[in-house]
Amino acid sequence: MLLTIVFYIAVTVEAMTAALAAGRRQMDWFGVCMLACVTALGGGTARDVLLGHYPLTWVENPYLLILVCGAAMATIAIARVVDRLRWPFLVLDGLGLVALTIIGCNIGIEMGLHPVIVIVAGMLTGIVGGILRDILCNDVPLVFSGELYATVSIVTGAIYLLGRHLGFESDLLIIAAFAVGFPLRLLSIIYKWSMPKFVYEKDWR
Amino acid sequence: MLLTIVFYIAVTVEAMTAALAAGRRQMDWFGVCMLACVTALGGGTARDVLLGHYPLTWVENPYLLILVCGAAMATIAIARVVDRLRWPFLVLDGLGLVALTIIGCNIGIEMGLHPVIVIVAGMLTGIVGGILRDILCNDVPLVFSGELYATVSIVTGAIYLLGRHLGFESDLLIIAAFAVGFPLRLLSIIYKWSMPKFVYEKDWR
Amino acid sequence: MLLTIVFYIAVTVEAMTAALAAGRRQMDWFGVCMLACVTALGGGTARDVLLGHYPLTWVENPYLLILVCGAAMATIAIARVVDRLRWPFLVLDGLGLVALTIIGCNIGIEMGLHPVIVIVAGMLTGIVGGILRDILCNDVPLVFSGELYATVSIVTGAIYLLGRHLGFESDLLIIAAFAVGFPLRLLSIIYKWSMPKFVYEKDWR
Repeated sequence: MLLTIVFYIAVTVEAMTAALAAGRRQMDWFGVCMLACVTALGGGTARDVLLGHYPLTWVENPYLLILVCGAAMATIAIARVVDRLRWPFLVLDGLGLVALTIIGCNIGIEMGLHPVIVIVAGMLTGIVGGILRDILCNDVPLVFSGELYATVSIVTGAIYLLGRHLGFESDLLIIAAFAVGFPLRLLSIIYKWSMPKFVYEKDWR
Repeated sequence: MLLTIVFYIAVTVEAMTAALAAGRRQMDWFGVCMLACVTALGGGTARDVLLGHYPLTWVENPYLLILVCGAAMATIAIARVVDRLRWPFLVLDGLGLVALTIIGCNIGIEMGLHPVIVIVAGMLTGIVGGILRDILCNDVPLVFSGELYATVSIVTGAIYLLGRHLGFESDLLIIAAFAVGFPLRLLSIIYKWSMPKFVYEKDWR
Repeated sequence: MLLTIVFYIAVTVEAMTAALAAGRRQMDWFGVCMLACVTALGGGTARDVLLGHYPLTWVENPYLLILVCGAAMATIAIARVVDRLRWPFLVLDGLGLVALTIIGCNIGIEMGLHPVIVIVAGMLTGIVGGILRDILCNDVPLVFSGELYATVSIVTGAIYLLGRHLGFESDLLIIAAFAVGFPLRLLSIIYKWSMPKFVYEKDWR
């Protein structure tokens, strides 16, 4: 229940940040909506296509598409405001990352998959939207460049899964996952924690 | 029947324009064929993968691949001629867009999907090929940059679907969809109609 | 059996070369692993998603993911060494290309698909990983730029399939495919054979 609410908030927030990215590329209104859909729903879509889990969330529940396009169009109207809300957005995005991860893990668990794949399903749900956004904007995906984003998703998924194997209750586990994943994400932004980079200069091939 | 003919023409035209795009990127002959396949068949493929509608069109009917590669190779031979045929190509491309949209909508209808998803299925069929072409060519997708292309597809799909709900005959509906979508596309090219753009300068993140 | 061993070697080699590509883009450790997974397993994944052949290889056998990430992380430690091993890598990559092609063809054959699609299945398995790597690195895919790579895969697949139709034994066929595809790849590197390019200057559209 709480998870569903956070899911809708996360989807809305992703749509709005994607709309700003589209604006920086001077895309038209259709491009804004399309990029918002890909960013907000691309993670779950990638997960479901890779796991063969049909129908996709937005096919079953088309109102998601309308929500996402509405949020994207609203962003066009209030871009300056959205821009000033940097911190609220990072907070909501962090909550969303944890929520998407848990939702993804749940689908992996329902399908009876191997724990490694369950964690991968959670991670895909959390991060693929941003990767697709960056590909469509013709960038090297941001998520590969040092931020603790995917890592937060993997840690959250691992804790969630471990707790399940230890027999904890579902609601408790969701709270625990938020209690670890969300502060981890916020602290990583505040203290600029980052994954080590692999820098290799010599050209090979 | 008419739809099938226009479908084959559309696929051929898409393949030829993709081949020219490949030529501008100095791709090899294999790249030309691959880009032609992705552009001409990518829309239907994306639709079918997202809807879980297997087998894909070109898996069921492999002669499509041969048609597309043939058209692409022919374009290498007659690039100068193809280049001069700008208007015939835009006309055929416009017809193709409407045909692909109707075909996509029909598949959505057959699968008993929600009207919003039926329109999305039509639109994906019409525009994803071009988006994939631009990603493989390392461009920001053209369809996001103002042209009335996706919009034509959405309008066409909406009219087609509305007509069906009002109980009109299938053949009549196809004609109506062409009668609206095709002139709309041509007029948008002639008068340079375009979607409003969302231009946002300040850097956020 | 032999095929399985070569498959694991191929996956490892692909992961290591992808890790070097990630290093040149200064990706973080997570990006290195992700790019390695996409490159090493993307071909089979694309094939299975397009053919509707579930579950995917790495979902069924998650240890593949661990192997790939392990190989990628090891590459970070020994990048200088890997760099000096250019020839061994090209040799293993050539063997891998043939192995992946045969594995892909076998899946197409098992599914009872049309010969053209069987060859396409083999080729997708062999080359899509590299294409996805280049898209994520924001390059125009290398495989489109003249090297005899996809061509080797198509020739190998065609010989394998032809041999099957002529009733040759499976083991013999695998050896024949290696005996043709592998030297063809090596010779194409040594003598810099390349596909003709289609270079087209004038801007169209």
